[in-house]
Amino acid sequence: MDIKTLADFCAKVGIAFPTAEIYGGFSGFYDWGPVGVEIKNNVKRVWWRTFVHQMDEIVGIDGSIVTHPDVWKASGHVEHFHDVVTRCKKCGRAYRADKLVLEVLGINVEGKPAEEIDTIIRKNNVRCPSCGGELGPVEYFNLMFETKVGPYGGVTSYLRPETAQLIFVNFPRVYLLARKRMPFGIAQMGKAYRNEISPRNFLFRLREFEQMEIEFFFDPKDDACPYYNEVKGKKVLGLTAEMQERGEKERPMRIADLVPEMPGREWMIFWIAKSVDFFVSVGVDPKRIRVREQLPDERAHYSMGTWDVEFRFDDLGWQEIEGIAHRGTYDLSRHQEFSGKSFEAVRPDGSKFIPMVIEPSWGVERTILAMLYSAYRKDEKRTYLRIHPQVAPYVVAVFPLVSKDGLPEIAREIYKEIRTEFRAFYDEKGNIGKRYRRQDEIGTPFCITVDYQTREDETVTIRDRDTMQQERVHKDEVVAWIREHVKNWRV
Amino acid sequence: MDIKTLADFCAKVGIAFPTAEIYGGFSGFYDWGPVGVEIKNNVKRVWWRTFVHQMDEIVGIDGSIVTHPDVWKASGHVEHFHDVVTRCKKCGRAYRADKLVLEVLGINVEGKPAEEIDTIIRKNNVRCPSCGGELGPVEYFNLMFETKVGPYGGVTSYLRPETAQLIFVNFPRVYLLARKRMPFGIAQMGKAYRNEISPRNFLFRLREFEQMEIEFFFDPKDDACPYYNEVKGKKVLGLTAEMQERGEKERPMRIADLVPEMPGREWMIFWIAKSVDFFVSVGVDPKRIRVREQLPDERAHYSMGTWDVEFRFDDLGWQEIEGIAHRGTYDLSRHQEFSGKSFEAVRPDGSKFIPMVIEPSWGVERTILAMLYSAYRKDEKRTYLRIHPQVAPYVVAVFPLVSKDGLPEIAREIYKEIRTEFRAFYDEKGNIGKRYRRQDEIGTPFCITVDYQTREDETVTIRDRDTMQQERVHKDEVVAWIREHVKNWRV
Repeated sequence: MDIKTLADFCAKVGIAFPTAEIYGGFSGFYDWGPVGVEIKNNVKRVWWRTFVHQMDEIVGIDGSIVTHPDVWKASGHVEHFHDVVTRCKKCGRAYRADKLVLEVLGINVEGKPAEEIDTIIRKNNVRCPSCGGELGPVEYFNLMFETKVGPYGGVTSYLRPETAQLIFVNFPRVYLLARKRMPFGIAQMGKAYRNEISPRNFLFRLREFEQMEIEFFFDPKDDACPYYNEVKGKKVLGLTAEMQERGEKERPMRIADLVPEMPGREWMIFWIAKSVDFFVSVGVDPKRIRVREQLPDERAHYSMGTWDVEFRFDDLGWQEIEGIAHRGTYDLSRHQEFSGKSFEAVRPDGSKFIPMVIEPSWGVERTILAMLYSAYRKDEKRTYLRIHPQVAPYVVAVFPLVSKDGLPEIAREIYKEIRTEFRAFYDEKGNIGKRYRRQDEIGTPFCITVDYQTREDETVTIRDRDTMQQERVHKDEVVAWIREHVKNWRV
Repeated sequence: MDIKTLADFCAKVGIAFPTAEIYGGFSGFYDWGPVGVEIKNNVKRVWWRTFVHQMDEIVGIDGSIVTHPDVWKASGHVEHFHDVVTRCKKCGRAYRADKLVLEVLGINVEGKPAEEIDTIIRKNNVRCPSCGGELGPVEYFNLMFETKVGPYGGVTSYLRPETAQLIFVNFPRVYLLARKRMPFGIAQMGKAYRNEISPRNFLFRLREFEQMEIEFFFDPKDDACPYYNEVKGKKVLGLTAEMQERGEKERPMRIADLVPEMPGREWMIFWIAKSVDFFVSVGVDPKRIRVREQLPDERAHYSMGTWDVEFRFDDLGWQEIEGIAHRGTYDLSRHQEFSGKSFEAVRPDGSKFIPMVIEPSWGVERTILAMLYSAYRKDEKRTYLRIHPQVAPYVVAVFPLVSKDGLPEIAREIYKEIRTEFRAFYDEKGNIGKRYRRQDEIGTPFCITVDYQTREDETVTIRDRDTMQQERVHKDEVVAWIREHVKNWRV
């Protein structure tokens, strides 16, 4: 399986494809088709239910995408959120200068100043990999998209490069609304934007993408996690910073052994465990998941420690699909400083403190990529998606065997009953084998067929997507049968 | 009830408030709080279920927000999507020139060229209403937000001013994915952006807002609607263009009498009926709804006829909350012309045609405003939101009467069972009366209280938000009780 095959497959069945294809597409921007939009909605719904509706400590918000510019001054994004770029003087192609130096010279210059990278490029006479031309000066390029708000020039604003800051700036209000509970978390799902130099790998590196984030606030002096005993023994494929420095590979280990002593350690372990559970619950192959501690020089400017949940793509190798960052008190302190408002919380004894925060941050598109990599099956007979019913675009498809002799009428009646409870699809066109294949491709777990026997004994066949086995069930028991099978479904 | 009272209420209970308040807010941009995000998600979910999952003819997509610039050249937005503005030379305040002329002189110049409006302003010596200063020249101001995509200057792109065009550009692909069905519709929910000169009235006129749109395609030569008999007799408060020209007011009339002979007339009537039904299903007061035909000079450049669903706000009067536009073949024809690709559909006999399209387009925020106006109740004792359980932030709240004597343990057990099926809230802090009031304010239909009697006979009280009546129910029957009451709930 490779990303190109998956991209072609996704375009073909209506999951996702480049936006504005009729105008040649637009690099880094994708549209979701009829099948993809259902999958995406399902993943977001399951995430929200898991972390907001099923967790007492967490409430949601939904912040603006175009945002007051001061937010990004305080957060450090105006100052820090840039890449180093260089452009070929001959062919005009632009490159990330640090990536180029790594690829051509094998030198890691991530995070180094532009001048230093420029010097390395001159000294080693690095040329344009595409045409051999001379490279222009290495410059900073801020990754935030700008837009002007209001008439007559307007105010320079930014499309949010992360959803997180909308949570931080709302902390004082939401903390009061949550009646000063501590620890507590704020969750948000929504679009974010980064003006990447070279978007690539289908949905993996986009300019417009969607995040699902939680900012989980706690008192560093009272940081015990009540669920710690449930999660501390859990095992994952783990890789600490130390192991990486020693050149070791990931190995099965207790999550608790991944995180050193630090404020909020128990909560960090809890969030790693919950994160892995979430991925598995939407059908990501647990054998392809590892948790890797970021090396100190990889970490963002705000981070006291970051653990990435990574997925092993056959062709791209291990890649981050979620980051869990310990942001300390950085963001709340900065907003307190820049706004002059209080970002403090209050302890039962009346003393005040700025909460620390742990941030589990998922990419929606990357989660779906990992799901699809895990689910895609192709053999001589067919292609099918072995995805979990709770995220499948449709749970059930209903067919009359033929579109005559009263079969469509019976099938439609069953279909109408089913769709009051489950996402369902009705199809009477074409031969039955093709109709099954089409549902296999988009991952519909169950196909119900009304045939001539239905007219005699009121039974229908239910076909299982994965085994292709069929069983006969009385039509009045179909809904209960589906309910039961969805509930007990295991990857 | 006025919009200011509602805005204050919404901020107080955590529905919505200005974004980045700590930095002074940002005109036209709002954030949704813990209560509001649940309401918004619920409205969107009900809409999607109603129009996508429950209608065979409709599939969904989710398009990019930052979009290829050619899309907006073809759509006419680069050329036409502007306001006329003028700015006071003294105080610098900007105005929509046409609104200013209407307010000051009572002359309707909507859609007139900038030069003509400029002449009227000079001739009548219209001055700045704020400081009396001289007004600058009347100019065009395009309402699309621009942003540059890519490094080194980048490509000028636009934040979509409507979701619709993302549907139109994807028509050829989605039509094939839907196996050339006709009529058929494509639905989409998502953000859109308009750089309004003066955003105002809380969530009513925003710069960043959310749309729920359907583009419903049909063959003008085969435009019968199979559901027409079900809807043609339905009545609404209606107001035709003719009635407006005669100075008449809205009156109860058959929807069928609102729409003159035109291609797709039956579908237009169907969409008006479905639209009104949707509003009522989420709790908008039907007595405050009317359907008004737009006058020819109000219509957008693409429209062959537009009917607005309007809501009567106490203070703002009748205002559009949904527009249903007949866009003819305008958009598909333009994209065919600009892209050189085919946007034709095929009839069973093999002949080809460009489909016509009817576009029902809802504003998410306006729908919620109308819901909240309809639901808000205030008397001497309390403020409560009489909203439908299917859109209420929580369906159930669970309380122990006191947080001791084993009552919290029983209450939490009940709460955990309920929340597997319903959005539920648990609260054991503060006195019971205050806890009820707090749930009343955010519209929770049912509050369940565990008291001392529960320990004896295993019954709990269930309190109805609207009547404040309580009844005792056995704790094992609570889930069934809620299921039944939610199902039968009527405004």
